[in-house]
Amino acid sequence: MTNAVAVAATGPHPARYPGAQAGQPTLDTWQEAPNNRWAFSHLGEILPTATIARSHPASPESPTVRLNHLASVMPDLQQRLEESYTDALLVLQRGKVIAEYYRPGFGPDDRHLLMSVSKSLCGLLVGALIDAGSIKPSAKVVDYVPELSTSVFDGPTVQDVLDMSISIIYNEDYEDPASEVQAHDRSSGWRGSRAEDPDDTYAFLTTLTGGGELGKFQYCSANTDVLAWIIERVSGLRYSEALSKYLWSKIDADHDATITVDSSGFGFANGGISCTARDLARVGQLLLEDGEGPGGKVVSKHWIEAIFAGGDRNAMVGASFIATHPHGSYTRQWWCTGHERGIVTGIGIHGQYLWVDPSADSVTVKLSSWPEPDNDQRHERDNKLLLDVGYALDEAGNEQTNSKEHTA
Amino acid sequence: MTNAVAVAATGPHPARYPGAQAGQPTLDTWQEAPNNRWAFSHLGEILPTATIARSHPASPESPTVRLNHLASVMPDLQQRLEESYTDALLVLQRGKVIAEYYRPGFGPDDRHLLMSVSKSLCGLLVGALIDAGSIKPSAKVVDYVPELSTSVFDGPTVQDVLDMSISIIYNEDYEDPASEVQAHDRSSGWRGSRAEDPDDTYAFLTTLTGGGELGKFQYCSANTDVLAWIIERVSGLRYSEALSKYLWSKIDADHDATITVDSSGFGFANGGISCTARDLARVGQLLLEDGEGPGGKVVSKHWIEAIFAGGDRNAMVGASFIATHPHGSYTRQWWCTGHERGIVTGIGIHGQYLWVDPSADSVTVKLSSWPEPDNDQRHERDNKLLLDVGYALDEAGNEQTNSKEHTA
Repeated sequence: MTNAVAVAATGPHPARYPGAQAGQPTLDTWQEAPNNRWAFSHLGEILPTATIARSHPASPESPTVRLNHLASVMPDLQQRLEESYTDALLVLQRGKVIAEYYRPGFGPDDRHLLMSVSKSLCGLLVGALIDAGSIKPSAKVVDYVPELSTSVFDGPTVQDVLDMSISIIYNEDYEDPASEVQAHDRSSGWRGSRAEDPDDTYAFLTTLTGGGELGKFQYCSANTDVLAWIIERVSGLRYSEALSKYLWSKIDADHDATITVDSSGFGFANGGISCTARDLARVGQLLLEDGEGPGGKVVSKHWIEAIFAGGDRNAMVGASFIATHPHGSYTRQWWCTGHERGIVTGIGIHGQYLWVDPSADSVTVKLSSWPEPDNDQRHERDNKLLLDVGYALDEAGNEQTNSKEHTA
Repeated sequence: MTNAVAVAATGPHPARYPGAQAGQPTLDTWQEAPNNRWAFSHLGEILPTATIARSHPASPESPTVRLNHLASVMPDLQQRLEESYTDALLVLQRGKVIAEYYRPGFGPDDRHLLMSVSKSLCGLLVGALIDAGSIKPSAKVVDYVPELSTSVFDGPTVQDVLDMSISIIYNEDYEDPASEVQAHDRSSGWRGSRAEDPDDTYAFLTTLTGGGELGKFQYCSANTDVLAWIIERVSGLRYSEALSKYLWSKIDADHDATITVDSSGFGFANGGISCTARDLARVGQLLLEDGEGPGGKVVSKHWIEAIFAGGDRNAMVGASFIATHPHGSYTRQWWCTGHERGIVTGIGIHGQYLWVDPSADSVTVKLSSWPEPDNDQRHERDNKLLLDVGYALDEAGNEQTNSKEHTA
């Protein structure tokens, strides 16, 4: 009964398969017809699965190091990668892989959790649906999702949510069990749930309150899940399907990506995507190609330009981001460093970066597993490392040019 | 505390990563260091994930039908496939794909749950470890797993378990909530668990009782999980890793396979593997190639011959299998039909088959989602369909030979 009420309160949602009943299948019904027809080929959505690898795993003793020219300009690069808990580093320049590093036990075909870099991918999907005329940035959230009308999201526009400029009672302290972010995790299947928790992410979002004042940046993961809910409403697709249709099928990805799903099957848009470093770099490359992927346009040049233009700097007063990036801002689910190189980036806790440096025509992916979720010193150091890569690419470019001149 | 006791009672088990503490990580600890370093690249083992496909999904309206010559000999084949809830049919002859069928919404790159065909794959792993001298078929189970010494498995040998010739109190009625098979499911994460359930599959296995009389065939899924436990003990690998090392990395698989895991990370050996139809056919092809895979030997010719030779027919008195297959038997986790064509097969509930027909030098994979788990009439019909495919291949072979003679 509890489940039925929750579904009624936040539904309808896209069905897991055509004709599936609301909320079906569950852990207790997936083996029954007609659910079994879908479940037998989607079992990883119902319960945990391990991979049985078709190839030998990456060596647990040795890293994969192909730092090439970059290592000659940055001789301490590998050491800095190791010290910053790097699982993967990948550098693209002019669309080509020019450096890669994988820690022992992790390799180019292995997927890694993106944490909040997932948010930046969601931003691109919203852009695609705005380009298609399906979403109006100036429309109110509740025009698409009336179920949010008793929450703090009654009033704000899609653009407000994209830019995280809404005042919400939401403690983003990842290590505090009483925080909203942990309650969010529990509703979304990221932690064991308690009796009093909302049934799923949709239901959790409807509980959020706050003044709702607009115009001041407040980083709040719930915003991204609201965007994913809007995407489902206007596309009729599950969020995981929308990611495939509007993004993943267009970037010439080597591998499928994955996204964690809650008990209702809703993808965890704010942090649940896993993919390989190489495939993530392909997403970054879109920003350098005016939104054009090898498999077709993802978003308009206009949308890309708006990301690079950055967000409202006045909104950032007091935000911790500007301690490291004094001219920084946030827009459309991307961080804009405000650096003279014109860098924009996705950032995830524990040290994930999708770093786009237009000055070097370069994308750098860094996937890490810092011991702590959020740590100013580590952000500072990784930021310096990523900047140094850009400068090194400038130098390497000059050297290559010089060496060409020498041989010419 | 409950967890700690359970782990102590059945452990140690292979760690999920080098240095991981017993039973770690869990749903509540995967985000913490040092667990996060492993968990960020293995999140599907901790919570459910959906696929974000890199390519467009199979059409939900149209099947993929490449039945080729087979359709000319069996004009009603497609209709019979549809009527028997077939998700995929694949026919290899002399190692080449000669016919394929996929229902609407399912395709050649999609994985399908194998159910008890998983058992036959486990049998091959045991064979590999017997060949390597790591397992002695005549040794007692408890020589490898002393934790089973208070269970019905105190006494039987590895060979008894391989051949399922142990009398166990175990109701294999998949639809009875009071049955042992449902309790097994709950301990293994296949159903929601109850307070009184054992914590994981290992703990469940230690609870099984019975007379333990030997020599009469009794189909019991628990046997396979005991074999997987033995495999972990002698290899030092997790069962999912052992499947990769001894089988999946040697068959030139197109795709990784997956296996469901319980809260301790133990793969569900008796039924939890998912893979594509093409990759499963590659496993069958091993039986026609004396155990040699394209990536190296999996099992000895001797082991393959023992499978084709069949099991103890006297043990089968009263078994339901001999209603359809009067000369049938079971050995080393494979069904031997006793048919003059020399067929052996893996069989899963809801209609999965890995059917090896040496007379036609052929492997047929049929993956279905029958509405019921086990149904004599459907078994009868699928058996006839699979036999008819073999006869059709004989004819097609003759026709091809004839047509070659004509052109010659």
